Amino acid sequence: MNKTVYVDNNATTAVAPEVTESMLPFFHEQWGNPSSMHTFGGKVKRNVDAAREKVAALIGAEHPSEIIFTSCGSESDNMAIRGSVDAMDGHPHVITTRVEHAAVLGPCHYLEDRGYRLTTLEVDAKGNLDMGKVREASSSGKKTVASIMWANNETGVLFPVPEIAALIKEGGGIFHTDAVQIAGKLPISVKDQPIDLLSISGHKLYAPKGIGALYVRRGTKITPHIMGGHQERGRRAGTENVPYIVGLGTACEMTMATMANDAEHERRLRDRLEAGILATCKGSQINGDVSNRLPGTTNISFE
Amino acid sequence: MNKTVYVDNNATTAVAPEVTESMLPFFHEQWGNPSSMHTFGGKVKRNVDAAREKVAALIGAEHPSEIIFTSCGSESDNMAIRGSVDAMDGHPHVITTRVEHAAVLGPCHYLEDRGYRLTTLEVDAKGNLDMGKVREASSSGKKTVASIMWANNETGVLFPVPEIAALIKEGGGIFHTDAVQIAGKLPISVKDQPIDLLSISGHKLYAPKGIGALYVRRGTKITPHIMGGHQERGRRAGTENVPYIVGLGTACEMTMATMANDAEHERRLRDRLEAGILATCKGSQINGDVSNRLPGTTNISFE
Repeated sequence: MNKTVYVDNNATTAVAPEVTESMLPFFHEQWGNPSSMHTFGGKVKRNVDAAREKVAALIGAEHPSEIIFTSCGSESDNMAIRGSVDAMDGHPHVITTRVEHAAVLGPCHYLEDRGYRLTTLEVDAKGNLDMGKVREASSSGKKTVASIMWANNETGVLFPVPEIAALIKEGGGIFHTDAVQIAGKLPISVKDQPIDLLSISGHKLYAPKGIGALYVRRGTKITPHIMGGHQERGRRAGTENVPYIVGLGTACEMTMATMANDAEHERRLRDRLEAGILATCKGSQINGDVSNRLPGTTNISFE
Repeated sequence: MNKTVYVDNNATTAVAPEVTESMLPFFHEQWGNPSSMHTFGGKVKRNVDAAREKVAALIGAEHPSEIIFTSCGSESDNMAIRGSVDAMDGHPHVITTRVEHAAVLGPCHYLEDRGYRLTTLEVDAKGNLDMGKVREASSSGKKTVASIMWANNETGVLFPVPEIAALIKEGGGIFHTDAVQIAGKLPISVKDQPIDLLSISGHKLYAPKGIGALYVRRGTKITPHIMGGHQERGRRAGTENVPYIVGLGTACEMTMATMANDAEHERRLRDRLEAGILATCKGSQINGDVSNRLPGTTNISFE
C-alpha cells in the first residue's frame, strides 16, 4: 500500500470545504466592489464586516476595526515593522530574534541597512529566549519596535509573548508578534495583553493562500504599506479580496469552535509518533523545548 | 420589468466561470505550497509557471520571469514607485499626473512628504497631457521615476504611453505605467516599448479581486515591497496565492483570445448608448477625448 500522509501543515493547510463553500457566492453572485457607492457593492461590504468580526473574535481583539485584511502573513509582518517604524519620530531601535520568519527578518535587515540599530536576540539549545537579554535590549534608552514571534514554525516552541510584550511596553516601545503559527491552534486574547500589532495568515488555518490580517491596537500609529486607497479605513489600499476575506472569517469561526479538541487530538498523535520514532530510530532526538510548544508540531533529528 | 444592468466594469468585473473552474482544483486537490521542497508542492509550482507565461503573453513581455504576481493593482503600483525609487542612488525626481489612481498618487505624495521632488502634470479639458510639459519635467537634470497611466479609469482616455516612455527614457529615467484599465481591452506589447514597469489587476479582466501583477523589465532594479521570502525570485515575499494566480492566467488567455471582438462589440454598444442619451437628455455631454479612449468606457455629465 502506498499512502501519502501530509504532515507539512505549518507550511500550508488544505482549504476546508466549508471555507470554499462560503467563498463561492462572492465570485459569481455577489461580486460587487465593497468600496463602490452603489447598493450592489454595499451588500458585499456587510459580508466583509461579518468576517472582520470573526477574525477579531479568534484573537480576542476588543473591536473589529482593529483588524486590517492583508494579502498574507508576510504582508502583515512587513506592514507591522516598516509601518510602525515609519510612523515614529526619529530612528527607533529595532529588536527581533534569530529564529523569526523571513518576512520579519527581511524588513529588519532592510532597516539595519538603512542605518537603524537592530538587535537580533539569540535562543538557547531548547529554542528559548533569555528574558534578561530582552529586558536589556528594551531598555537601551531609545524608543523600540520589537517583533517577536509567538510560536516557532519549525519547532513549535512558544515564546512567552505576554511577558516579552510587557517588557517592551515598559520601555515605551511598540510590540509586534508574528502569530501565524499559533492563531487557530491555541487560544490567544490580544485585548488582555500589551500587544500592539499581531500578524495572522489564512493558509495556516484552512483558509486559502493569499489572505492574512494584521491586528492594530486602537491608537497604534502605523504608516500604510500599500497606500493610496480608502479601503480598510485608509490603512491598506487595494480592492478588498472579498471571497478570501469571507473565507478567512469562516476559517476563524471554525477553528475557534474546534481548537480545544483539535489541540488535544494532535497532541496525542504527535506524542505517539515521537515515541515510536524515538523507540525505533537509534540516535533520533526531538528538538526544542518539549514542555512548551504547539500541540501539532514536532521537529526531529536523525543520525 | 425591473432589470438591473451592471455598467461598473472599470471598478470590478464578475469572475468568469472558466476562471473559477480553473482555480477550484487548487483549493482542495493541489493545495501544496509551491515553495515547498517536496513533490506535492512542485506540481503546484508548474501551474504557477504556466500562468506566468499567459500573463506575459497578454502584455507582450519578452520573458515570463519579468512577471511578478502581487495581491492587487494597488500593490503593483506601490511596489513599482517606492521600489524603483528606493533602488536608485540619491533622491530621484518623481513625475506623475493629476488623474492617476490613488494607488499611484498615494506613494507619490508619501515620497514628496519625505523630501522627494514631485511633479504632478495637469491634463486639459479633454483629459489629454501636454507633451511639452512631459519633456520639460523629464529633462530637469535629475534622475526621474515617472508613473503615468495608460488608460484613465473614469473617462477611458488613453495617454500616448509609448511616446511618454520614450521621453522619460531619453532623460535616463525609469518609466512605470498603471495599465490596469487597458490590459485585456486593447493590445499592448511591453517588449516593443521603452516601458520598465507595468501594473495589471485581475479583477478588471474577469479574474478575482486580490490578484495583480507587476511587469519588471529585465535589468530594472527594484526593492521588494513585501520582503523576506524567496518567492517570485526574491522580489515578492509571501506564499503564492496559487488559485488566483492560475485564475489570472486563465483570464489573460481568455481576454487575449476575445479582445478584438469584445472591443468592437463594446464600442458599438457604448456609441449607441451615448447617442441615445445625447439625443434625449438636454444638456448632457460626453467628457474626455472621444477620439482616443477605451472602447467600453463612457463618462457623461447631465445638467
